[in-house]
Amino acid sequence: MNEQLRADAEAIVRAAIEAVSPARAVQKALQNRTFPGKVYLMAAGKAAWEMARAALEVLETPVAAGIVVTKYHHVKHPLPGILCREAGHPVPDENSFSAAAEVLEMTRGLAESDTVLFLLSGGASALFELPLVSGEELQDITGQLLACGADITEINTIRKRLSAVKGGRFALHCAPARVETIVLSDILGDPLDQIASGPTVADATSCAQAAAIAEKYQLRLSPAARACLEKETPKSLPNATAQIIGSVGQLCQAAAEACRQKGYRPLLLTDRLDCEAREAGRFLASIARTQAAVCSGQKLALLAGGETVVHLRGKGLGGRNQELALAAAAGLDGLAGAAVISVGSDGTDGPTDAAGGYVDGDTLAALAAKGWNADAALADNNAYHALQAVDGLIITGPTGTNVNDIALVLLDG
Amino acid sequence: MNEQLRADAEAIVRAAIEAVSPARAVQKALQNRTFPGKVYLMAAGKAAWEMARAALEVLETPVAAGIVVTKYHHVKHPLPGILCREAGHPVPDENSFSAAAEVLEMTRGLAESDTVLFLLSGGASALFELPLVSGEELQDITGQLLACGADITEINTIRKRLSAVKGGRFALHCAPARVETIVLSDILGDPLDQIASGPTVADATSCAQAAAIAEKYQLRLSPAARACLEKETPKSLPNATAQIIGSVGQLCQAAAEACRQKGYRPLLLTDRLDCEAREAGRFLASIARTQAAVCSGQKLALLAGGETVVHLRGKGLGGRNQELALAAAAGLDGLAGAAVISVGSDGTDGPTDAAGGYVDGDTLAALAAKGWNADAALADNNAYHALQAVDGLIITGPTGTNVNDIALVLLDG
Repeated sequence: MNEQLRADAEAIVRAAIEAVSPARAVQKALQNRTFPGKVYLMAAGKAAWEMARAALEVLETPVAAGIVVTKYHHVKHPLPGILCREAGHPVPDENSFSAAAEVLEMTRGLAESDTVLFLLSGGASALFELPLVSGEELQDITGQLLACGADITEINTIRKRLSAVKGGRFALHCAPARVETIVLSDILGDPLDQIASGPTVADATSCAQAAAIAEKYQLRLSPAARACLEKETPKSLPNATAQIIGSVGQLCQAAAEACRQKGYRPLLLTDRLDCEAREAGRFLASIARTQAAVCSGQKLALLAGGETVVHLRGKGLGGRNQELALAAAAGLDGLAGAAVISVGSDGTDGPTDAAGGYVDGDTLAALAAKGWNADAALADNNAYHALQAVDGLIITGPTGTNVNDIALVLLDG
Repeated sequence: MNEQLRADAEAIVRAAIEAVSPARAVQKALQNRTFPGKVYLMAAGKAAWEMARAALEVLETPVAAGIVVTKYHHVKHPLPGILCREAGHPVPDENSFSAAAEVLEMTRGLAESDTVLFLLSGGASALFELPLVSGEELQDITGQLLACGADITEINTIRKRLSAVKGGRFALHCAPARVETIVLSDILGDPLDQIASGPTVADATSCAQAAAIAEKYQLRLSPAARACLEKETPKSLPNATAQIIGSVGQLCQAAAEACRQKGYRPLLLTDRLDCEAREAGRFLASIARTQAAVCSGQKLALLAGGETVVHLRGKGLGGRNQELALAAAAGLDGLAGAAVISVGSDGTDGPTDAAGGYVDGDTLAALAAKGWNADAALADNNAYHALQAVDGLIITGPTGTNVNDIALVLLDG
């Protein structure tokens, strides 16, 4: 193993993740802000607790009231003046619904000078939900859509109309108060109307589209659900604004800056990577091999942010970042001064305690020496144990953020 | 469809392929060359006839004798003073063996001042072969190795020892005459000892390795074959030189130059691309989308040369370049001023009459309008018919060269 490259690679990804931590991003967004009236705090998503805590630390105006809704076991300790709720994810449960009802109650009858600070992160689609039909019917309709092969846009077009808070309805509910949404994005391209199904963003879909989808898939709907599909979502929300404060794009920018500080010239390839993890690893290794020849003697870093996919066929342990890294090992084999690292910004890659993996030109031989074959390990989706055998796992622990993944080719030779 | 992008993309790949045509490359390599003694011409491979014709045109010294060995139907017309032979590919046949015997006869007993010009191109491994065991046993041993899952390096280590011409033995046979090998490479990275199993290149593998492979896979071998494995290949060939005159690297360089002439700033990503075709397409589309945002207003071209792979699961028609292009359509959807093109330099992609495919931000919608779903077409390996429906096929006809493929992201917007 190239110890220097491994140290640089790990330091760069750690610095990048730290730079997009919810606390840092929220503090940057709210620093020196003042508000004319009362401030209500609402945080939903997997990073809700961290975002709310950071907001409380930096806000100069005290909050009038506040609610955090996050995943089970994600509230670390009570926050002063804030109700902390834990609820179901990825499937919403009764705790999701009751928390959303509390939020609607807190934000009812506000004045025009009031502000609702809405801190949004990945997972909020399930965590912050109050259906207009029963929870059972919501789950049944979602199940019907998934079984028919409906795509995510179609599913969201229906689900926004079955919700009291999605598709801009939460912002409408808060009116005339101002709603400021601060978003840690976990969807590539940061589509504001899709993150958590856009509770504070004007909805671009129409009742006609919803009806066409119901017809196309012959959905079985109760009269109540049918009535919901006929009710339009807000098309304009003059009281609402939204800004992305953390995203994979910013993760990439932070990684590029960290590369520069270590003397590597960074080149961003993409912040929208979405292909099969192992093929991305092979592609990146092929880039590494060519650039090592073309840019010989330079310190160069190529960055690819996004979220790859894995198709489980084997019975091993691993995650998309570990598969990407392990798949790059063959292409890098024997190449001096070249490495590939890939990590998930949340620090948990697949069902493992690793954030991702690291490989370089020595990895394939090291694997062979320990009796591992990279292809066989990939075929069994067992990247974790293969990388573990050659000290190729990157372990950060949960980071508190969730802005997709970053993969890096480092060249120094 | 963006007509301007399509015209630019097709013009760039055509210019690149033309620049690495065997005729042009051979003429460049042999221009103004003089030779002290007699010149013998030997051309083997799919481009052998074109290479030999070009050599005859440019050589100022007349050739003393010459032999072309190429695929069936690849001799276009007789060449003066040259024996033109056609033989089996990808499996060598009796015509391969008899042609190789003629070549050995032609190059027997040469003087130190003589020169053998060896023009080598893809396919020569089968076309130029004279086994030291029977043709049946050669095929049987190859079959055993394939069935055991032996890799290409292991297969070649065995096969070089079963051949009178591979693994440097042809150059040894020609000594003391000088052997100049001029290579049109069809293997990524241009490993001279692997192209056609290196008839004129010192062999790095050893008898000990061959014995270990025979033991590992428990090969069934005749006494004659067993004796072959114990005979060492040449480790040093002071009479031989080799140069690559055409390769995917040069195809990429030519494409970069063509991009410049059309006003696009070229950036070579890789000339070693070897992953799954459709995933390469998705990766390139993700790069296109990010670069379109980051480099807005610039004319930019990103190049990836190599040879992707396709796993056939469906019953449709297509090829790796067409699959790569079609798979990029979803990622480009709705993106103005962005296109992906991918073509095989030989002009024949898979079992089709197309060289490859072109897609841009309008393609997915155009497909839908004609009743095509890109994912479904890919699942059926039916990229040809999908692209045909939206004028996305690139058709050049056979080009006479074979230096892998090139894919291009073009951005203008």
